[in-house]
Amino acid sequence: MTAKLLPRRSSAAHLAAISLDPDNGVPLYRQLYFAIREAILSGRLASGARLPATRSLAQDLGLSRNTVVSAYEQLLAEGYLDGRIGAGSYVSAVLPEALLNARQATARRHAVNRSGQPSLSARGAALAALHEAGGRTPQPFSPGLPELATFPFDDWARLLARRWRNPPRSFLVGGDPSGYRPLREALAQYLGAARAVSCDPDQILIVSGAQQAVDLAARALLEPGDAVWMEEPGYGGANGALIAAGAVPVPVPVDDEGMVVAQGRDMAPAARMAFVSPSHQYPLGVTMTLRRRLELLDWARSANAFILEDDYDSEYRYAGRPLAAMQGLDEDGRILYVGSFSKVMFPGLRIGYIVVPKPLVPAFRAIRTLLDSHPSSLPQAALADFIADGYLTAHIRRMRALYAARQAVMLAAFPPGLLDLAPHDTGMHLVGPLPDDCDDVMVSQRIAAAGIVAPPLSTYYRGAPHRRGLLLGYAGVTAPEIRTGVGRIAEVLAGI
Amino acid sequence: MTAKLLPRRSSAAHLAAISLDPDNGVPLYRQLYFAIREAILSGRLASGARLPATRSLAQDLGLSRNTVVSAYEQLLAEGYLDGRIGAGSYVSAVLPEALLNARQATARRHAVNRSGQPSLSARGAALAALHEAGGRTPQPFSPGLPELATFPFDDWARLLARRWRNPPRSFLVGGDPSGYRPLREALAQYLGAARAVSCDPDQILIVSGAQQAVDLAARALLEPGDAVWMEEPGYGGANGALIAAGAVPVPVPVDDEGMVVAQGRDMAPAARMAFVSPSHQYPLGVTMTLRRRLELLDWARSANAFILEDDYDSEYRYAGRPLAAMQGLDEDGRILYVGSFSKVMFPGLRIGYIVVPKPLVPAFRAIRTLLDSHPSSLPQAALADFIADGYLTAHIRRMRALYAARQAVMLAAFPPGLLDLAPHDTGMHLVGPLPDDCDDVMVSQRIAAAGIVAPPLSTYYRGAPHRRGLLLGYAGVTAPEIRTGVGRIAEVLAGI
Repeated sequence: MTAKLLPRRSSAAHLAAISLDPDNGVPLYRQLYFAIREAILSGRLASGARLPATRSLAQDLGLSRNTVVSAYEQLLAEGYLDGRIGAGSYVSAVLPEALLNARQATARRHAVNRSGQPSLSARGAALAALHEAGGRTPQPFSPGLPELATFPFDDWARLLARRWRNPPRSFLVGGDPSGYRPLREALAQYLGAARAVSCDPDQILIVSGAQQAVDLAARALLEPGDAVWMEEPGYGGANGALIAAGAVPVPVPVDDEGMVVAQGRDMAPAARMAFVSPSHQYPLGVTMTLRRRLELLDWARSANAFILEDDYDSEYRYAGRPLAAMQGLDEDGRILYVGSFSKVMFPGLRIGYIVVPKPLVPAFRAIRTLLDSHPSSLPQAALADFIADGYLTAHIRRMRALYAARQAVMLAAFPPGLLDLAPHDTGMHLVGPLPDDCDDVMVSQRIAAAGIVAPPLSTYYRGAPHRRGLLLGYAGVTAPEIRTGVGRIAEVLAGI
Repeated sequence: MTAKLLPRRSSAAHLAAISLDPDNGVPLYRQLYFAIREAILSGRLASGARLPATRSLAQDLGLSRNTVVSAYEQLLAEGYLDGRIGAGSYVSAVLPEALLNARQATARRHAVNRSGQPSLSARGAALAALHEAGGRTPQPFSPGLPELATFPFDDWARLLARRWRNPPRSFLVGGDPSGYRPLREALAQYLGAARAVSCDPDQILIVSGAQQAVDLAARALLEPGDAVWMEEPGYGGANGALIAAGAVPVPVPVDDEGMVVAQGRDMAPAARMAFVSPSHQYPLGVTMTLRRRLELLDWARSANAFILEDDYDSEYRYAGRPLAAMQGLDEDGRILYVGSFSKVMFPGLRIGYIVVPKPLVPAFRAIRTLLDSHPSSLPQAALADFIADGYLTAHIRRMRALYAARQAVMLAAFPPGLLDLAPHDTGMHLVGPLPDDCDDVMVSQRIAAAGIVAPPLSTYYRGAPHRRGLLLGYAGVTAPEIRTGVGRIAEVLAGI
């Protein structure tokens, strides 16, 4: 309270110099509050200094007295001032002047020297570097993007409004960490019938998507540093979520039968988990053969490891019925089954689920509670209705026919010999192979310059890419758009 | 393909013994498929065995031939059978018999010996033990539960339906990892006006609640093992999220001025973060004094640490205007401001936000993308409307008056001398102190047996509790319910 670093003027002189702007949208009392606060924090108004009477400051600044009173009241309430309105207000004597000076000093130091600036941890920096924050481009031929225009939004909006006009108290409190039970019941029935997943509703946790499912599984089942077999090439989202949870992905090659289990055994025999998409490998589209499924299960048993089965788009099977999920082969609680509504409804919904072996359910519920309490109740009841009332299967049936037709359009649109596209009986995208010496990243960039999205296959590899090519999503693209887009790709490819 | 472990019967004899149930809801072809699949997987039908012709199996089982054909087709598609319908189908010769036998062996081993059972990692077990998966009890006097009955659900349902009847493509694709921009714009304006938080919309990330905000901040800013100052007593949710992200919480005592910074300096001078609720400390209700705020900032500068400011319910201030958030005092990007809509709307919504210093925004966006891509677009547009059209501030204004009245009812309802409840000018709960030698857990259990929730203060301590008492939420409880509830508590307390 003694030596002052800054020259002193009377508080009245300081405050009379304040300039307020009646037109900037911030109430005047608030502008005055901020101005006085800053004068105190910066040390220009010293501890113990007496503030002018409200009436005289109002006069000096051309304000109503009420405005000044409101500002003083707020400053008193927040501890910047002591005293009482009308009986003299003082800059708080308990403000630690050393701290105010330190604040000045910090500001000065930062002007000269950027060291000691607050920054990311090494972990944070490594994670931030893994993935560019993008957001999906809703352009042809962005893979994984479903048809959006013909989704039954009237029905969806009606179901939402019906549930929210008069919501039960339980929706508002939103307590169950596994999610809304009727949704889990509808989902268990759907998964049993459509995917041969054997589970009861208690085994399901509703999550925000496959990545949260991976995050949850990793934190429950892995120690930091544990190895996880990942498909190579594979899904970057799972890779990132695993790394963010401290796991170490091991890229195990995929051949025409799916993940090559023998190579996984060589590369990391003691891995604690394998992440696979057996129904329709992402991005190559391979269906894992029964032989490989049994081999993978055999390894998991011998290594006491878990299998995370990502079943992201196998509802879209165009020849015969969908193949059974691997989860149904599980006998001793090693397979966790992950799915989402991003492909069968729309990605912006952000609802996924994980089916967990029974003995693990209590722990998954507890850990989920730690991470984000419980899923939002907002979509869950409407979604339960959407499934239980048959809207979902009807929509999937329509989309299956539509996507099959679109795939045929895409196959027919490519001039012979340009990209060796083969028909595929599952999924929402095709992979057009390019020669091994072709720089698919460069090709993809040229195609992007023509307004078309076709991600390069090589970027789905963590290690050196074994194959080159372009991913071409056709599900969300109309037939005319497909023909136009293919035409542009053909032009680009012809020019290379 | 040679020695068989199991006695062999002809495949026809095996399959003729299958029993199907036409009334169990699963289509017959599917029941047959599962039965044959299980016979193959269990080794009862050996590799290479010829299956009976569809017509003769249909006759044996009393099924239509189409049913058998469908089952065979699915088994062929999934690789259990080789051959062609009508030309002889065989159990796949490529099925690795060793694996099928291993499957049997595993099943046998598990029957005898539970070792090698798949189980949680040590990390997972520790996390699962931290917190019981509960879910909030919507009963008097559950703290933090807002008034739910008078929320404007008609308006909310109308806003939701309006946005979802004809959603723009961007909602469906849902790409921005920070959340819907108009929501962030509405929120930045609201936070500036209501909480003196200075930020622009780019600094805001929409998250699923305070816990996800803590998780994100911890992974971006902390190394595993870094110490974090936590208020003692404090918010268990943040504590759990920090531990789940590998941080080590250090419980720093709270006195009448808020967190005791000097003790934090003694206990963990090199901590990398402090988690505080300066506007209204949870659970004690203290407002952190300006002096302490400046001390905390000073420590953060000297330790190059971050401050996570949790501002969970300070909209509900009954005397004067809400106090300014600490974030507005930040000069060099050390304060991250966390809030949610759980208290001003309803907890089931699960929408929160974190305001991040500008230099950290790109990294937070990238790490958020790794964890769960982006927030659901479902509530965001309706919520942006709800804020921008003035519904939120109107609701908060009504609730402020209602909660002030309910607090007064609660204070008046307690017989003098029973619990020394003091009026409080902020928040949604009061703390009723109990003597230091009183077992508040036992008291709380007895009250719970009378149907009333009043969590014991001691359970909010990580270490030995310094104070005992009961938390009494009054915001979500009507005046008659308050009187009844207080009456029951009085009876229990009188009997102790």
